[in-house]
Amino acid sequence: MVVDLEAVRAARERIKGHVHRTPVLRSSYFDQKLGAELFFKCENFQKVGAFKIRGASNAVLSLSDEEAARGVCAHSSGNHAQALALAARRRGIKACIIMPKTAPCVKLGAVRDYGAEILLCEPTQQAREETTRQYIEDSGATYIPSYDDDRVIAGQGTAALEFLEEVPELDMILVPVGGGGLVSGTALAASGHATPVKVIGSEPECADDARRSLEAGRILPSDNPDTIADGLRTSLGQRTFPLIQRFVDSIVTASEESILLAMRNIWERMKIVVEPSSAVPLAAVLEKQVDVKGKKVGIIFSGGNVEFSRRSALLN
Amino acid sequence: MVVDLEAVRAARERIKGHVHRTPVLRSSYFDQKLGAELFFKCENFQKVGAFKIRGASNAVLSLSDEEAARGVCAHSSGNHAQALALAARRRGIKACIIMPKTAPCVKLGAVRDYGAEILLCEPTQQAREETTRQYIEDSGATYIPSYDDDRVIAGQGTAALEFLEEVPELDMILVPVGGGGLVSGTALAASGHATPVKVIGSEPECADDARRSLEAGRILPSDNPDTIADGLRTSLGQRTFPLIQRFVDSIVTASEESILLAMRNIWERMKIVVEPSSAVPLAAVLEKQVDVKGKKVGIIFSGGNVEFSRRSALLN
Repeated sequence: MVVDLEAVRAARERIKGHVHRTPVLRSSYFDQKLGAELFFKCENFQKVGAFKIRGASNAVLSLSDEEAARGVCAHSSGNHAQALALAARRRGIKACIIMPKTAPCVKLGAVRDYGAEILLCEPTQQAREETTRQYIEDSGATYIPSYDDDRVIAGQGTAALEFLEEVPELDMILVPVGGGGLVSGTALAASGHATPVKVIGSEPECADDARRSLEAGRILPSDNPDTIADGLRTSLGQRTFPLIQRFVDSIVTASEESILLAMRNIWERMKIVVEPSSAVPLAAVLEKQVDVKGKKVGIIFSGGNVEFSRRSALLN
Repeated sequence: MVVDLEAVRAARERIKGHVHRTPVLRSSYFDQKLGAELFFKCENFQKVGAFKIRGASNAVLSLSDEEAARGVCAHSSGNHAQALALAARRRGIKACIIMPKTAPCVKLGAVRDYGAEILLCEPTQQAREETTRQYIEDSGATYIPSYDDDRVIAGQGTAALEFLEEVPELDMILVPVGGGGLVSGTALAASGHATPVKVIGSEPECADDARRSLEAGRILPSDNPDTIADGLRTSLGQRTFPLIQRFVDSIVTASEESILLAMRNIWERMKIVVEPSSAVPLAAVLEKQVDVKGKKVGIIFSGGNVEFSRRSALLN
């Protein structure tokens, strides 16, 4: 399978009824502040709280019955873990998620609530891979990566298809970039639009592997970057990188401080909860990394999974 | 003017176009947890972030041109201050808000952003009243109370009118109770509904003046109660109390801990920002203070104005 615009369109048909068509919200506050018209596609309201259910559902629903019968697996302690667990449950097949022993209890609980089996391993890359390899050998399960996979990329692109259907006059779409699944799917979706739509990837300054990789012409991973946008700590993959090279217009970055400020601004002004990763595109825009004046600007809020701390820490 | 169902209906016509018709959201998580069907009327998405704009707009739009020309005033450091400022600006008249010197800078700024004049006074009840009296004497402005006023009560009731229009089969509506403007307006609105709708007021355990007052048959104010639900620290008024006696079915309470837990739950599960006061009805339901099993339950989220603290305190 080669992932292209047709694959995104096919994914959309495949996952219909399995994911929410999320709303597009406006904010007169940000419009005024930026002198632009902003549109926010709210994947924070998506099932499992993030766009990840799109790719996971497309991957799971693409399996033959024979493959499906042997189950699926992944290693992830993020939104992909819950997404794959739910997608598998909906198809009535088994999912096994390999997670580090050190994963927070609440994340284990969420995955378990969706009916997946959890295999704990030591918190090293090697242990994760070895545990996964062993599980696949024993079970015959299909491995579903969290981003570097054609089915997953095609699934993630469905958010932008919906977005452009609802707001066809968008001049650009900004999305966060971690492993690159969302940005490359978005770029594929936009490539078939009737009018030109720029696709701009946004990443934390301190996890700017996409920007550096594009400049260098080869994948330059970030080394365990320390950003509050924890969904964006991963680096580009073998499949997402060439798609980004070909289809994405540019990569912009935002500082940690402006990511936090943008997130608080979204919470306080729009009254919705987004996770730090979701705030990165708006942070870059507020930093004037993108010229949006007079433009119609689409931003995909990738997810809303935030754990709030207890009383003392909640409020001023 | 006597406030009644007709006054609420008239308010609705009067303020159309001046306030948002807020959405009603569902949550499969809470439905499952409670074995009920819950409907949430989201006044946190309302203009100025709270239902208060309804009452303030109705009051301002009810003034004669002659009265309006002399302006309006109020003392408040809460949502009513911003609401009155915006309502006045929309009518093109002057608003003056009397606020204590100790009010947080961000609250002063918000009121000023809506174009109101601010008069600062010492942070005592006496100073507030004296400053207000003096201002009215000098300016001839009309005083618009934050809840104990027929026009304000009628305006607040419009949220429930919309709610029942959208979900006519509700068995009950729960709302938070501070001064009682929202609950009495809601009860008036529900009194004209085709089928019986129970109206239940909810307040913090440590600010349970409405419950005690109803039991005693006279107003028993709370004495400067310390609750995180800061919108509910006020006590019932001369106009709201008799309406509550006559039209409200019961008053339930929630502990501080369950208010906080309910608020976090709403943020984490529904991905929307509500202020602590908004979480009180759901907290009471989660505490099993209300039997909701198998029922269609409406809850009004009264507002979403929360100031989030900085990085260290935001997340776990």
